[in-house]
Amino acid sequence: MAAPAPISPLAPKGFPTLPPIEGVRFAAGAAGVRYQGRTDVMLALFDRPATVAGVFTRSKCPSATVDWCRAALSEGRARALVVNSGNANAFTGGAGVATTTAVAKATAKAIGAAPNEVYQASTGVIGEPMDPAPIVNALEARVKLGEAEVTINGIAKGAGMIAPDMATMLSFVFTDAPIAAPALQALLSKGVDRSFNAITVDSDTSTSDTLLIFSTGAAAAHGAPAIADAADPRLAAFRRALDKLLLDLAQQVVRDGEGARKFVEVRVAGAATRRAAKRIALAIANSPLVKTAVAGEDANWGRVVMAVGKSGEKAERDRLDIFFGDLRVAHAGKRDPDYSEAEASAYMKKGKIVIGVNVGVGTATAKVWTCDLTKDYIAINGDYRS
Amino acid sequence: MAAPAPISPLAPKGFPTLPPIEGVRFAAGAAGVRYQGRTDVMLALFDRPATVAGVFTRSKCPSATVDWCRAALSEGRARALVVNSGNANAFTGGAGVATTTAVAKATAKAIGAAPNEVYQASTGVIGEPMDPAPIVNALEARVKLGEAEVTINGIAKGAGMIAPDMATMLSFVFTDAPIAAPALQALLSKGVDRSFNAITVDSDTSTSDTLLIFSTGAAAAHGAPAIADAADPRLAAFRRALDKLLLDLAQQVVRDGEGARKFVEVRVAGAATRRAAKRIALAIANSPLVKTAVAGEDANWGRVVMAVGKSGEKAERDRLDIFFGDLRVAHAGKRDPDYSEAEASAYMKKGKIVIGVNVGVGTATAKVWTCDLTKDYIAINGDYRS
Repeated sequence: MAAPAPISPLAPKGFPTLPPIEGVRFAAGAAGVRYQGRTDVMLALFDRPATVAGVFTRSKCPSATVDWCRAALSEGRARALVVNSGNANAFTGGAGVATTTAVAKATAKAIGAAPNEVYQASTGVIGEPMDPAPIVNALEARVKLGEAEVTINGIAKGAGMIAPDMATMLSFVFTDAPIAAPALQALLSKGVDRSFNAITVDSDTSTSDTLLIFSTGAAAAHGAPAIADAADPRLAAFRRALDKLLLDLAQQVVRDGEGARKFVEVRVAGAATRRAAKRIALAIANSPLVKTAVAGEDANWGRVVMAVGKSGEKAERDRLDIFFGDLRVAHAGKRDPDYSEAEASAYMKKGKIVIGVNVGVGTATAKVWTCDLTKDYIAINGDYRS
Repeated sequence: MAAPAPISPLAPKGFPTLPPIEGVRFAAGAAGVRYQGRTDVMLALFDRPATVAGVFTRSKCPSATVDWCRAALSEGRARALVVNSGNANAFTGGAGVATTTAVAKATAKAIGAAPNEVYQASTGVIGEPMDPAPIVNALEARVKLGEAEVTINGIAKGAGMIAPDMATMLSFVFTDAPIAAPALQALLSKGVDRSFNAITVDSDTSTSDTLLIFSTGAAAAHGAPAIADAADPRLAAFRRALDKLLLDLAQQVVRDGEGARKFVEVRVAGAATRRAAKRIALAIANSPLVKTAVAGEDANWGRVVMAVGKSGEKAERDRLDIFFGDLRVAHAGKRDPDYSEAEASAYMKKGKIVIGVNVGVGTATAKVWTCDLTKDYIAINGDYRS
């Protein structure tokens, strides 16, 4: 067997140079959380307290780190963000809580802040006790810090275990726009519905999913107005920029999905409600039979019918239309009379596949994004821990 | 790449000789529904009208054949069952309805019955118009019929597209016990909850799932009492035999799952309700990350935690216990102090894996069955139609 591709061929070929955000400084280092010599800790420091909002996994077994952030958000003020890989600090009981507390206290002490102004995120193995010492030591060694100024940017880390109801392992967005925490939370909660909560790699949901947005407010010094209310009309351009950024980051997570070779957009129209449209779209995007058909470049629209039926949502079989790209393959409940197997097969060879469905009962729509299901996904996940 | 195994190594090594059921005769033939020279039509004839009950797919896009049976069940009398492979007669619009009508009429005419006494089931490709002529011709050619007498037996056909809410493509159970149709329906509907509706291969749900039970009533001649009420205490032994048969057939469907190399039983205890327990069990059984870990013989119980969390049902993280077979790998919300990686890894090499979870909130339990997710599943389903 060939070794699986180390990264998706759909992944970005390089990383863009992100515009710096005024008021936030970043550093990274190799703390040795699980392995020696790998960069495994990132630190973001806010010169002045930033406002902060967050959205987390809906898992009923969230990590200790997620619990920590949820509690801290009631204050909505951030002085630092500490991120580690190697250990998710999930399913670690009381020891996990002690670890998040120790990391927060050490960070807070080093920068002269309160512990609940220290946000944290962890990714890695589940169920292994996590020793705070390597992270605390790395902080105390005062890793080198870069510096700069900004508008809005973000980073995301995904792979597998990516499903709706959050969807990325870890993603952080930074802005210098002076927006109060409650307004920031409203913008973020609304924005994820059509971005991070509209992607899926394998339907599995991490215990650690965390999306945080921090606002340093530094743009106030350049005349940007302070915004307290998410409904403020002056937020329109910012909201569009944020939504675009969230969508871009979310789609990059899918493109980087484990074993992914094709990027798939599922568009559902004609549904009874927006919620129904999204459930139908996710039933298609999560169907192993649809995903293996895409992997095999097989224009098997019968499996799309199957997935629509399985969603449990209302669909009018005798009005159902199915499209692959611009090709209408099924119309009004049966194979399209103009269906061409050759055209459909040629389309399936593309790197991006758009599956469109009109379920014929209403006017609501939804879009979600996923990738195909390949043998590399099995190879990558069939031997993860060892 | 090696060609995928044509059948699961877990599949039965041979077929048992089923005891014949008095009052029903079987025949099979090669009608040429899709391919020439393959046995693709089965006919069961009832000497006298049999009582009948059925459970079908919950797909919102059921096949024309499923629609036909649902309508016929209001009468609850069967004279014949016609089953074909090669074409599912699903998503075939008005033409599909015409096909089921033509097959029923031809069968009814040949045996002197009413069309709605003819039950049908179809499996195969979705969305291709299905010509009734090959089946009608095969019936008229008077395929050779075997004959015999019985108690209770059944057959099932599965593979992929096997998920709860029905679960097998096609399964038929026959008995000579004289039980009225409503009582038979009650027994069947209750029986599927812990058998066919507790199995999953890939979470996908067919448009054609059909489980029918027919009672010829022929045992009345040997002194068996006629039963009209499902609550009749004289049904106790029959109910146990039926439940055992349904479970055996359902588990065989899983063992024959596409690409399956391991049989997995998921046991959930300590849930708030039976429904919650089953949802948690299915979240584990349908998780691609759990299924690939089993395929890779990796004792990755962190993925079981992930799946419990993803189910959306109540679980007490700090009271969660996880077992692989008799090995308790996690206890009270963290790794078991006696956890042995070597023992757990040795256990994962077995052909049958039992994953046990106690979620620590109540007393309800559930069991479901699935198989692992292997590269063979991808190979089989990545090139199905061509």
